Amino acid sequence: MSVAPALGADHPPHLRARRLGLHAQHEPIVMMRTDCHVCRAEGLSARSQVLISAGGRRAYATLFQIDDFLAPEEAALSEAAWALLGLADGDLISITHAPTLESLSHVRRRVYGHRLDAAAIEAIVKDVVAGRYADVHLAAFLTASSALPMDEQETRDLTQAMADAGDRLTWPAPVVMDKHCIGGLPGNRTTPIVVAIVTAFGLVMPKTSSRAITSPAGTADTMETLTPVELDLATLRRVVEAEGGCIAWGGAVRLSPADDIFIRVERVLDIDAEGQLVASVLSKKLAAGSTHVVLDIPVGPTAKVRTEDAARALADRLQSVAGAFGLRTLCLQTDGSQPVGRGIGPALEAIDILAVLQNRADAPQDLRRRACQLAGAALELGGAAIPGTGQSAAEEALADGRAWAKFQRICEAQGGLRTPPKAPLGQDLCAGRSGRIVHINNRKIARLAKLAGAPEAKAAGLTLHTRLGEETAEGQPLLTVHSETPGELTYALDYAAANPDFIEIEA
Amino acid sequence: MSVAPALGADHPPHLRARRLGLHAQHEPIVMMRTDCHVCRAEGLSARSQVLISAGGRRAYATLFQIDDFLAPEEAALSEAAWALLGLADGDLISITHAPTLESLSHVRRRVYGHRLDAAAIEAIVKDVVAGRYADVHLAAFLTASSALPMDEQETRDLTQAMADAGDRLTWPAPVVMDKHCIGGLPGNRTTPIVVAIVTAFGLVMPKTSSRAITSPAGTADTMETLTPVELDLATLRRVVEAEGGCIAWGGAVRLSPADDIFIRVERVLDIDAEGQLVASVLSKKLAAGSTHVVLDIPVGPTAKVRTEDAARALADRLQSVAGAFGLRTLCLQTDGSQPVGRGIGPALEAIDILAVLQNRADAPQDLRRRACQLAGAALELGGAAIPGTGQSAAEEALADGRAWAKFQRICEAQGGLRTPPKAPLGQDLCAGRSGRIVHINNRKIARLAKLAGAPEAKAAGLTLHTRLGEETAEGQPLLTVHSETPGELTYALDYAAANPDFIEIEA
Repeated sequence: MSVAPALGADHPPHLRARRLGLHAQHEPIVMMRTDCHVCRAEGLSARSQVLISAGGRRAYATLFQIDDFLAPEEAALSEAAWALLGLADGDLISITHAPTLESLSHVRRRVYGHRLDAAAIEAIVKDVVAGRYADVHLAAFLTASSALPMDEQETRDLTQAMADAGDRLTWPAPVVMDKHCIGGLPGNRTTPIVVAIVTAFGLVMPKTSSRAITSPAGTADTMETLTPVELDLATLRRVVEAEGGCIAWGGAVRLSPADDIFIRVERVLDIDAEGQLVASVLSKKLAAGSTHVVLDIPVGPTAKVRTEDAARALADRLQSVAGAFGLRTLCLQTDGSQPVGRGIGPALEAIDILAVLQNRADAPQDLRRRACQLAGAALELGGAAIPGTGQSAAEEALADGRAWAKFQRICEAQGGLRTPPKAPLGQDLCAGRSGRIVHINNRKIARLAKLAGAPEAKAAGLTLHTRLGEETAEGQPLLTVHSETPGELTYALDYAAANPDFIEIEA
Repeated sequence: MSVAPALGADHPPHLRARRLGLHAQHEPIVMMRTDCHVCRAEGLSARSQVLISAGGRRAYATLFQIDDFLAPEEAALSEAAWALLGLADGDLISITHAPTLESLSHVRRRVYGHRLDAAAIEAIVKDVVAGRYADVHLAAFLTASSALPMDEQETRDLTQAMADAGDRLTWPAPVVMDKHCIGGLPGNRTTPIVVAIVTAFGLVMPKTSSRAITSPAGTADTMETLTPVELDLATLRRVVEAEGGCIAWGGAVRLSPADDIFIRVERVLDIDAEGQLVASVLSKKLAAGSTHVVLDIPVGPTAKVRTEDAARALADRLQSVAGAFGLRTLCLQTDGSQPVGRGIGPALEAIDILAVLQNRADAPQDLRRRACQLAGAALELGGAAIPGTGQSAAEEALADGRAWAKFQRICEAQGGLRTPPKAPLGQDLCAGRSGRIVHINNRKIARLAKLAGAPEAKAAGLTLHTRLGEETAEGQPLLTVHSETPGELTYALDYAAANPDFIEIEA
């Protein structure tokens, strides 16, 4: 082949950047006049993927075209694109067709049902982290590796690629403890209590947590109502050196940054498949420098894991992938038949946590018991308690105030303990008949809390006033819906009216 | 449950619609001020799915928020949203959270590897056709049903649901002929020739075709350079009544409209999976009222179908699903080892078609032969030729000018025959050595034509100057790249330089 030199390659067309304050979540978007010289010269059309270059930085973006409003030499950028490129208003930028992404051919192979090797998975993760995938590409990769589930080798390779694609922390300690809950159980917010107890015993536990994927609150969402969680690496190290532990948002320190990108799309699709789940959990732990992990797997008819067999299979997969990386894990199957504690939603769960740590008489006992069970397992796994004595040691540290004192010091180190916000709007949902509570649907309870505004609206969510097996009387409040806006309250109440079986009562 | 009346339900908040001339392909988008009363009252955030109501019409849209530029009481809409709602500037619109789509729970089940029943598939297709799915939801459904391929029952149910979701044509004829090619072979544009021949024999063939999915041209794209193809139902009927056939774009008559929505996303993802392919082909045929279909399945190492076994499996699936609907089909395996004809791209393929129909000496003989083979099969299947004589009958109709006369009459009836456009820019790619052509990569040839601008740029694409097995000399042109813009030409030439194996030469 003899190919002529590329025409126009030495005349990159320039436009002036204009900031619109356009919020399109994480997606970089650029708007240009349909008739501008760049669109015409490059043959760009609406939704073309383009490459924007400015002052040495580059970003992939989706093009929207506009007939008016902008000047022909202007390009308006979304906030995500603006931040990626570090622009100032009026900066010159050049825009071309985005080069073909070779890694998309691997995604296509996976969509056609072929398995991927380590190199293909690494190429995909690198392009994802570099912001080169549009949401439809992310959706294609995630759903293809769910419908035909990832096998163990793919899961290992994805874990490795995700851990390698961001920062890796190391800690000068032989045991670096971690814990994780395989979601699906509203209100199961044990982590802050476990960290307080475990670090009170001198173990190192630099905990980084995710935001919610499909639930009404993640640990990071909840902790954010109590103390800053978006710690940079230096702050995080300072907190852990001073207190032996922290409770921070993982995304702020670029631990497995691909995970945060995948999670945003999983959230829109409301999915969270096993292989992705294992890689998500373990890549974060590896990147965080953990050596030991306690895993909480709640099992119940409406929890994420529905049967003991499924829990065992998931535990096996987690342990065998973790083992390949030298990570010691302990999986606990726990009761997943109903929500934990009373509050569901970031601030409402924070209030439960404070009640347990402060030994208040009205503290939810189920949350306290679960936290002590997990903290006890961590103390034993980490060699800080003799096997069989972990749980009672944990209970003592709560009872004598050591855990609460530790928690306050950690929050102070992270930037100060604060009071969770309260929602301005509330409405009780009351029992339509007298009888016994025979079923609480975790999924519908979670949906209800999300419709009320959680987790974006920190104070939104539910307060449960009843538990499985309790007796209730007609007209007695079963739960309270909390919202920050009338629209969200309406929306949640409409859903409750259409789905009265979120709590079932039998005479 | 006793639930209070929904707050604010009788106070729908209104905004004034503003047209921006915003092109975002088919996706309805609305932009609102972050601080407007609707966003605050409804708790809307960037990328919320919203329901827009205006004068009795409703549309689902994705919300982008903007800090400035719009007045707080304005909402700016993309062209797709504007068209769906039939708005005029300044019209009052109301915007609320989009209601939960129950059919998305079926998509989620499919993503988790469960099969869907007819009711679930019907619900999905209905919501898709109503424009309620965002692109990520469409991508999730399509990739999930590719990674875990649809089984025969799902494929039947999808075919039925897609055919039912749009218009259904009926024709007052016992035999209504159709043909379809299972893509993958650049330049294989036999349909216009087949329709001309078959209708010249008096059979009814109301042909509706798709635009390109992942190829540089679909039949509708090519025919559009010769005559109008966006015929409404009344025009289409008039053309078929007058001439016995037509060559129209299926999308303009709402035959299986879900297919066109799926295809737009498949195109972005560059996928085209078997189950979806079968449902796409057969739902269009059923909706078009066809009774008999000839299917062309090209087989070759870089065609869509790579082996005879795969072709047989696809033919079996097509025939068995078609049979369930009483549709008579005949599948022909054809040579898919290299492109057909010389032109690749809408206008360039139209030029080849004219050369064959006009019996020009320089007409590509492979295109002529394939068209006669398929037309012959259709004549036999439809009872217009005795078995074994179809192909020679078809050749006679070409040779004596009956097919060309018929084609001109069909084009006149559709709105007039026109001359395909020519691209302003062209560049030869020449042989780097002397030798014999041993391999032509259909996929890379198609990619090259697409990078040159096809099918959006009608005149863009390639002209091939060589065929498998021919001898070439160093410096001799192998193909010409045609583009409408310098950017696209550069882009295609860069790809050719990086992928010199699109045509392989051996000494």
